[in-house]
Amino acid sequence: MRINTTDTIVALATAHGTAAIAVIRLSGPKAVEICDRFFFSTSLKKKSLAGLKSRVARHGVIMHQDIIVDDVVLTVFKGPNSYTGDDSVEVSCHGSVFIQQQLLQLFLSAGARMAEPGEYTMRAFLNRKLDLSQAEAVADLIASNSAISHQVAMQQMRGGFSAKIRLLRENLVQFASLIELELDFSEEDVEFANRDELTTLVNKISAVIEKLVASFEIGNVIKNGIPVAIVGKPNAGKSTLLNVLLEEERAIVSEIPGTTRDTIEDEIIIGGVLFRFIDTAGIRTTTDVVEQIGVNRALEAMKRSAIIIYLFDAHELSGGDLKNELEILKDNIGNSQLVIVANKMDVENEKELRLEFSDFENMIFISAKEKKNISQLTDRLINLFDARTIEATDTIVTNARHAQSLKNAALALEKVRKGLEENIAGDLLALEIRYALLELGNITGEVTNEDLLENIFTRFCIGK
Amino acid sequence: MRINTTDTIVALATAHGTAAIAVIRLSGPKAVEICDRFFFSTSLKKKSLAGLKSRVARHGVIMHQDIIVDDVVLTVFKGPNSYTGDDSVEVSCHGSVFIQQQLLQLFLSAGARMAEPGEYTMRAFLNRKLDLSQAEAVADLIASNSAISHQVAMQQMRGGFSAKIRLLRENLVQFASLIELELDFSEEDVEFANRDELTTLVNKISAVIEKLVASFEIGNVIKNGIPVAIVGKPNAGKSTLLNVLLEEERAIVSEIPGTTRDTIEDEIIIGGVLFRFIDTAGIRTTTDVVEQIGVNRALEAMKRSAIIIYLFDAHELSGGDLKNELEILKDNIGNSQLVIVANKMDVENEKELRLEFSDFENMIFISAKEKKNISQLTDRLINLFDARTIEATDTIVTNARHAQSLKNAALALEKVRKGLEENIAGDLLALEIRYALLELGNITGEVTNEDLLENIFTRFCIGK
Repeated sequence: MRINTTDTIVALATAHGTAAIAVIRLSGPKAVEICDRFFFSTSLKKKSLAGLKSRVARHGVIMHQDIIVDDVVLTVFKGPNSYTGDDSVEVSCHGSVFIQQQLLQLFLSAGARMAEPGEYTMRAFLNRKLDLSQAEAVADLIASNSAISHQVAMQQMRGGFSAKIRLLRENLVQFASLIELELDFSEEDVEFANRDELTTLVNKISAVIEKLVASFEIGNVIKNGIPVAIVGKPNAGKSTLLNVLLEEERAIVSEIPGTTRDTIEDEIIIGGVLFRFIDTAGIRTTTDVVEQIGVNRALEAMKRSAIIIYLFDAHELSGGDLKNELEILKDNIGNSQLVIVANKMDVENEKELRLEFSDFENMIFISAKEKKNISQLTDRLINLFDARTIEATDTIVTNARHAQSLKNAALALEKVRKGLEENIAGDLLALEIRYALLELGNITGEVTNEDLLENIFTRFCIGK
Repeated sequence: MRINTTDTIVALATAHGTAAIAVIRLSGPKAVEICDRFFFSTSLKKKSLAGLKSRVARHGVIMHQDIIVDDVVLTVFKGPNSYTGDDSVEVSCHGSVFIQQQLLQLFLSAGARMAEPGEYTMRAFLNRKLDLSQAEAVADLIASNSAISHQVAMQQMRGGFSAKIRLLRENLVQFASLIELELDFSEEDVEFANRDELTTLVNKISAVIEKLVASFEIGNVIKNGIPVAIVGKPNAGKSTLLNVLLEEERAIVSEIPGTTRDTIEDEIIIGGVLFRFIDTAGIRTTTDVVEQIGVNRALEAMKRSAIIIYLFDAHELSGGDLKNELEILKDNIGNSQLVIVANKMDVENEKELRLEFSDFENMIFISAKEKKNISQLTDRLINLFDARTIEATDTIVTNARHAQSLKNAALALEKVRKGLEENIAGDLLALEIRYALLELGNITGEVTNEDLLENIFTRFCIGK
């Protein structure tokens, strides 16, 4: 991608395929002029777009060499009050793939060029309509597939995260100015900055940054799904449980025709949160080499999981057996949350089972096959996630690039803190502070370069 | 489908799936009120839509219970100046499937209901924004996949066909009034209508209608593709030729990312016209039963084709052989156009081959493998089609329902013509004329019923 903001770009903005309508968007200095060439009133009279008010939708036709390409609704968005900040035109046409092709070809022939992925949003960034972290949130918002990933992206797009970073930068600038004032007068051996106060300030800033860094653990699972391993002996009913959960989700969204997401095997949205279930081979001690590989994979999966569901056949194990089984797993649970689920219960034996396993707190009794008590399990999953979210900061970092910059800034500030302790010279401290400022500036795009922009925007879809 | 125009309907208007943007459309008496409940300025202040000018795009957010569902551009189209003729709102949101679901759910919860397929266009018809044949053309336009099917649908949508039908109806009404005037005075045995003049008039009307009926043969192939059978001996290179044609088409459209149509095996657009190629088993006399079935199929395919390409290996057949081969096919060609194509020619042997086959006019020499002279073949196909189109009337009927009504009207007029010849009483003539008027009225929807509307609009996509 060459960063070029003087070309007029064009692309299909809506999803590919046949539909009622499609929207083609042009943006750039010649957007209006190009459309003007082909736009006529419905009675085929030439209507100049030049005099047309911004943001007023106008019904007419796109005509070229006496052939009417389509009956359209065209809206001009004059810069800077447009998505990109440049003059833009949205052409809402009939959703025939053929018409989409014809219109694009027409606009291309008149001097527009196909937009690169993310180029509209990149222009919005370059025109300061959005900062970089907001621009990145646009892509996250479009990719969002659960209530929580949607809300986090929305908050970031609306500038919540940027405001936080800006505040941190302001605090750091204040800090830097105190240090640099001292430097200006260093020959006079004056110490303007009270080093204790500086330490307090740097600690405060560091604490905020570290909380943000820590939030990435949550942010990452919000975006990619919370990994949940279902482990247990063979035939405990793991696959049945997975199918029941998947069915429930599909039932919830299927009432709205045409908007069902492409579900990925084992990704299930529960209560607005995406869970990524890892169905594992049964775990048991075995001497069979092939089977042992399966068991090892299950143990691996447990380590990568935020939540482990231990599922067992309530009729197969006694309380004592269960204790032994859990003892074996213990070393592989790590920081994960463990949920013990007794499967294959039914009304007749529920009481009896609850007695047998009364030593185990918070155990859930379900019947996957009969779809009984499934909501108890899903509620538990949501609660476990909620607790983790609340522990995190109110702002959640979901972007690995942001997390890395925050970590780098935290490292620099750690050096500053130590430097203050060891009474290191102000110019060395100032260097580290500038480095931390640079890293924070990277996040919002105060400091940027072409490679970074390319890296970010090529991940967008064409048309955004 | 209940025909109900008092509900407020909502649907996704753009194609399914993730994209830069998506458009959700509401229409009906509560469209503005429903959106008004959730629309706020970008700074989250309540902005009433009631005072908002029609057709002005407004940037804001859709918010529900303090959760921002999306940042949107919303445009109100006040009736009757909207697509449906009723108050409508278009909400242009981020193209996340999750957001589409959330917005639809929100509008549904506020009293809108999911639109049935074609319900927007049906309302446009019921509000007299379009007549029935224009409404049907909307679906054809969206389904159009070639320049010619697009142009025919566009002309019909813009009312070209309707105007023609209206003129025919006016002529018939004039005719009927002459007859009925005579009826009024029948006791006095006065003959107002000159029966010769009436015959001339009915012949004129019939001629137009018959031309329209005849145009359906073309209209049908425009819509569904012109059937072309490629026949010839095994190994003449039929599949290679088909692949070369398919590749060429793909190369033409592939320059525009994201708009390539879903090509159906063997459907190829050449010069804006859809051709449906039927690759057949090689034709030769055989005693093998299974092979004979293939040969019979090829002969069947020839009968169903508008164009037959006879392809042969130029090195295998002499001029005499070819003459014999064509002799065998002769009976199966019927009304189809025959194009004789010599394959496997190359520069060294072209002259020699042309001499060998100099008896055969208009033969085309190609090399499918080397992609030589393919354009000569495609040009010929286009020319054959053009010739047929020009023979047809300037208005082309593409809709089987219209063709049937026209046929019925023609039959009624034939009875009138005979009646005039046989000096039949005016009241019997008037009956047939009224029947013809009714049939023409069916086309544009002057006369209609719920079943007919349901039958027509359920074929639309949801959202249109």
